[in-house]
Amino acid sequence: MAILKVSARSKPTAVAGAIAGTIRQEGRAEVQAIGPEAVNQAVKAVAVARTYLAPESIDIVCIPIFVDVIIEAEERTAIKFLVEKLPLESSGLPLGVDVRPPRPAAPPAEPFPSAGS
Amino acid sequence: MAILKVSARSKPTAVAGAIAGTIRQEGRAEVQAIGPEAVNQAVKAVAVARTYLAPESIDIVCIPIFVDVIIEAEERTAIKFLVEKLPLESSGLPLGVDVRPPRPAAPPAEPFPSAGS
Repeated sequence: MAILKVSARSKPTAVAGAIAGTIRQEGRAEVQAIGPEAVNQAVKAVAVARTYLAPESIDIVCIPIFVDVIIEAEERTAIKFLVEKLPLESSGLPLGVDVRPPRPAAPPAEPFPSAGS
Repeated sequence: MAILKVSARSKPTAVAGAIAGTIRQEGRAEVQAIGPEAVNQAVKAVAVARTYLAPESIDIVCIPIFVDVIIEAEERTAIKFLVEKLPLESSGLPLGVDVRPPRPAAPPAEPFPSAGS
């Protein structure tokens, strides 16, 4: 499985799309980030990916682990997020404020005065 | 359940201890962070908490969600991590480089030349 590498400049929605696609195809995904800004983008991407997958009744969780990676001959500590499908019995968790379902529309205004008025 | 609030200056090991304690007592925990540095510390804390709980055969996963919070009369978007126990059948996931079991010690050097030499 390819590792999705996230940088400080990655767009969370783009990474979220890649996570959702990988989850659909392979059932799990791996996302790697180095440094606070990249980790933050990766976390946001997972939060957004949940909203992409929710209509398909798929929920996901992530498990952060430390990994050593070699970049330009230098050893760095990265965070790798193992993203896994959540077992069905755990679904029903909130998706967060950005994806709350819209409030039900107000009932249509009475077109005419009701009979009792 | 109290929300564990993580700042950019929080020590991941201290937060990890709080997460592990809450998981032991309540079975789940909530961790909240605002801004990339704080989110990074929170993620590291979850990774470390896994290593604290592993000897008790407990694994944890996290689910990041966006939440709106009011801080000093200003609305900010925070990341809240719902930290949940992982179902047992999913255990066996790696804990990461920082917590790999130590390599088995090398066999003791022969104190004397062996009989065949």
